[in-house]
Amino acid sequence: MIKTLRQYLPILDWGARYDRNALSNDLIAAVIVTIMLIPQSLAYALLAGLPPEAGIYASIVPIMLYSVFGTSRALAVGPVAVVSLLTASAVGQVADAGTAGYAIAALTLALLSGVFLLVLGLFRLGFLANFLSHPVIAGFITASGLLIAASQLKHIFGIEAGGHTLVETLISLGEHIGDLNVITLIIGVAATGFLFWVRKGLKPLLRKMGLGPRMADVVTKAGPVAAVVVTTLLAWGFSLDARGVSIVGSVPQSLPPFTMPGLGLDLIRQLAVPAVLISIIGFVESVSVAQTLAAKKRQRIDPNQELIGLGAANIGAAFTGGYPVTGGFARSVVNFDAGAETPAAGAFTAVGLAIAAVALTPLVYFLPKATLAATIVVAVLSLVDLSILKKTWRYSRSDFAAVAATIVLTLVLGVEIGVASGVILSIVLHLYKTSQPHVAEVGLVPGTQHFRNVNRHAVETDPTLLTLRPDESLYFVNARFLEDLVSDRIARDREVRNVVLMCSAMNDIDYSALESLEALNHRLTDLGIGFHLSEVKGPVMDKLKGTHFTQEMNGQVYLAQYDAWRALARDQAARAAE
Amino acid sequence: MIKTLRQYLPILDWGARYDRNALSNDLIAAVIVTIMLIPQSLAYALLAGLPPEAGIYASIVPIMLYSVFGTSRALAVGPVAVVSLLTASAVGQVADAGTAGYAIAALTLALLSGVFLLVLGLFRLGFLANFLSHPVIAGFITASGLLIAASQLKHIFGIEAGGHTLVETLISLGEHIGDLNVITLIIGVAATGFLFWVRKGLKPLLRKMGLGPRMADVVTKAGPVAAVVVTTLLAWGFSLDARGVSIVGSVPQSLPPFTMPGLGLDLIRQLAVPAVLISIIGFVESVSVAQTLAAKKRQRIDPNQELIGLGAANIGAAFTGGYPVTGGFARSVVNFDAGAETPAAGAFTAVGLAIAAVALTPLVYFLPKATLAATIVVAVLSLVDLSILKKTWRYSRSDFAAVAATIVLTLVLGVEIGVASGVILSIVLHLYKTSQPHVAEVGLVPGTQHFRNVNRHAVETDPTLLTLRPDESLYFVNARFLEDLVSDRIARDREVRNVVLMCSAMNDIDYSALESLEALNHRLTDLGIGFHLSEVKGPVMDKLKGTHFTQEMNGQVYLAQYDAWRALARDQAARAAE
Repeated sequence: MIKTLRQYLPILDWGARYDRNALSNDLIAAVIVTIMLIPQSLAYALLAGLPPEAGIYASIVPIMLYSVFGTSRALAVGPVAVVSLLTASAVGQVADAGTAGYAIAALTLALLSGVFLLVLGLFRLGFLANFLSHPVIAGFITASGLLIAASQLKHIFGIEAGGHTLVETLISLGEHIGDLNVITLIIGVAATGFLFWVRKGLKPLLRKMGLGPRMADVVTKAGPVAAVVVTTLLAWGFSLDARGVSIVGSVPQSLPPFTMPGLGLDLIRQLAVPAVLISIIGFVESVSVAQTLAAKKRQRIDPNQELIGLGAANIGAAFTGGYPVTGGFARSVVNFDAGAETPAAGAFTAVGLAIAAVALTPLVYFLPKATLAATIVVAVLSLVDLSILKKTWRYSRSDFAAVAATIVLTLVLGVEIGVASGVILSIVLHLYKTSQPHVAEVGLVPGTQHFRNVNRHAVETDPTLLTLRPDESLYFVNARFLEDLVSDRIARDREVRNVVLMCSAMNDIDYSALESLEALNHRLTDLGIGFHLSEVKGPVMDKLKGTHFTQEMNGQVYLAQYDAWRALARDQAARAAE
Repeated sequence: MIKTLRQYLPILDWGARYDRNALSNDLIAAVIVTIMLIPQSLAYALLAGLPPEAGIYASIVPIMLYSVFGTSRALAVGPVAVVSLLTASAVGQVADAGTAGYAIAALTLALLSGVFLLVLGLFRLGFLANFLSHPVIAGFITASGLLIAASQLKHIFGIEAGGHTLVETLISLGEHIGDLNVITLIIGVAATGFLFWVRKGLKPLLRKMGLGPRMADVVTKAGPVAAVVVTTLLAWGFSLDARGVSIVGSVPQSLPPFTMPGLGLDLIRQLAVPAVLISIIGFVESVSVAQTLAAKKRQRIDPNQELIGLGAANIGAAFTGGYPVTGGFARSVVNFDAGAETPAAGAFTAVGLAIAAVALTPLVYFLPKATLAATIVVAVLSLVDLSILKKTWRYSRSDFAAVAATIVLTLVLGVEIGVASGVILSIVLHLYKTSQPHVAEVGLVPGTQHFRNVNRHAVETDPTLLTLRPDESLYFVNARFLEDLVSDRIARDREVRNVVLMCSAMNDIDYSALESLEALNHRLTDLGIGFHLSEVKGPVMDKLKGTHFTQEMNGQVYLAQYDAWRALARDQAARAAE
């Protein structure tokens, strides 16, 4: 019982061994992460189409719940770029940004997503995330990065625009470009340039100036905070809001409020599919970060328990003014690098953000939205990696097709259709590959008991004996292929009197394949041809025993292919006498 | 060039060698099939919700076109039960049965289906049909049989009723049961009983009376014709139509008319998905019949050319007053048994039906619809085979799940959702099975160079060397599984210094798996653990060469696992010195 409880509440495990040393490491990590998260949370809320405080709220209770139920020691849960984009896309279809209905729908989305993750976790269905292949994920992240960057241009230009696909967004920008606000544009471009420089040029400079690598890293991470502080002071000092520069404005000073997600059936029906998509994409991002970080310390995470942790976090977000969250890459790496030892670091971060929500929100009143947009653009453009196209093209055309389709369809038709098409395409291409497995015709290597492909080796064969070795499990997608192959082969070659299926590479035979083998047996029986199996693996033979097929089979099951050869090859008797 | 033309026009192949003997065999077969098809065509048109002549028309031009483009020597193309049901379900959603719009929508459905089949054939995409597993097909056919039988009860009771699912149909029957026509019921029940008896009891009786097996067969097949003749005479003699018995009524005396399918975008959009479904199901039914019959004579069919033949047949049906057609099981078997040698038999059948359409339609004026319903009920109930549930349950739970889901969902939610769910479920279950492949930890069989599973054999192992053999190709669905397995294993066992992946059972490594291997290499490198491969198959090694992974791998690729053992096992040096 205690074992089960500990499985579901990993906090009981690490909490029991918590000491002063872990505490101080966790506290230091929490301070660093909190400073980084304040502008990031505001920015992602903006990206999701929500008021800025939603980003802060989404980082408080969800982090705490994850630290109770999650298994990763370093994962930092909260709003992330891709999930914010997906939220904007999904909620934008049921309500207009800025309305109360929009915020409520975002809560509903978080709730649905949380419940879905929780159910997957309780039923241990985490393997479903594997249906997203790496090429699809890479293509999706790259296309999302471009979409997100494009969506932020309106804040940098200081204009109103919309659109959920790249084309829509660009057209909308073009239509409103006349309303351009020059001061906003200057702030936006300067902030973007500065942040790019911080990312690429600052760290080498600091190192050259004699700073230690750790310290250089921390200063670099503080770049967005500097941009926020400077542009806020400018906006305040010159009253830029009066000159048409959009600023964040008043953000309520409060702890996360208790909120109630919309529970209308219609709303739930409209958001169900996006919630599933957000859950799976969020889970995949989160679990790969968590696994990478855990492996560095020879720790392990439990993907199904991660589902429960993320589910709890999202349900928490739904009732405390947030929106869908997941484990973010950037923040988790910072947390890990800053020395976080246990999920308590996350809880301390939450406390830091709660203090910020109560005390610091007036300070961001004059923060220009263009600055937040700049932090988003710089963050997401680092996700864009078109080299995946070249890499997959070289390695495998079907993987390339999956990447290319995902990128193009995400950009042109939107995130949901893009991902769904990518997943379906990679599954279909995989099934296509296994639908035409390699089937070797084999013969005896002279002087041995080994059988090899007749096309690659000098082997003995017998014109009346056809031996085929399919290099794949037989299942419904390729069952008919083998049936056709054998039928074609014996239709062309009238000397064949016996067919042997060498099953050494067959890990499974499903019911469709069994019926194909039955059909094959009937056809061969009609033609007076013997049908035999050899080298059937133990578990497969266990399944076959007692089926119609083995009862009706006109031939034998030989343990070794060599036994089949000795029994069936025409010239064996003669050769034995030699 | 002539080769290509012959591929696309199989008629050039068999036509060149056509002789008097083939002609007489084909003519005899055509006469028998024509007699069988007249009532059947009328009945299936009724099932599809169309006027009776549509069934005859759908058997004329389509058969002729198939005989030009098809590759099967015995396949008889025309309306079949399941496709008629699917037509009723699809067209019923866009128009009311009996209206002109309904008939036009059926033409559109045939056109879409024909174009889709043609495209699949030209692009050689016939393998897509393999995604329908045998359990899904069996479940679907059984459920369809029950649905069709239920849908015909209204004709046997002589009432009006509707519904596309079993529940809807039964409720609708219950609501109208008060309008029951007793004479209709007597005719319907008597015809059904008679036809069942013909199927089960007549043939043994005839054999007992001394008839030859072939003749007994032909007489049995004529049973429906007898039922038609007798009940038509009764209806005529007693003017049963005046007593409320529904009769076929006047059928135009004409050759198939030229008709124009509806081409409105809205109509096409609504019928596109059903057309795809009808095409694939029709193709699967047709191709399995054709293959079975071809194999009996060591002939072969070309599935992609079959798509072209069936596509042409459906396009023909669309322009000549028909509806979607395919190669039917019953009619093809009769054609084959009656001695048809070439597709010319089909063309002669078409001529026979054309004569019937012009000359014989007045004779069916008094044919009670209840008789046609009886022939349908008896035909489709022979398709119902619930034993598939027991068989799959015994053989494999995942195949059972696919059958059960298909049957239940087809009955409860309708044919389209039923089949789609079955297909998706069997693909997901298959992917699930391969998502957790068998991975053996292997050791050296003492005194040999062979490596076997440590759990099944007494083998030598080395605590610093972990050798794993995954019994499956690595691809996106199982890539993470292996990554986790290795990570977990080395997190538990701190003695391990080297990991070898023995790749003897790996037929492919896709890009996702490649990235998983890279990630694994990074993790192991971080931990100071060597990562090696052994026994990589040639084609897989060709792909791996020149990738980041092989360049960055911290260990070696060994040709044989024994080489890896000699190089990496800790005690090898000591042992060699002994």
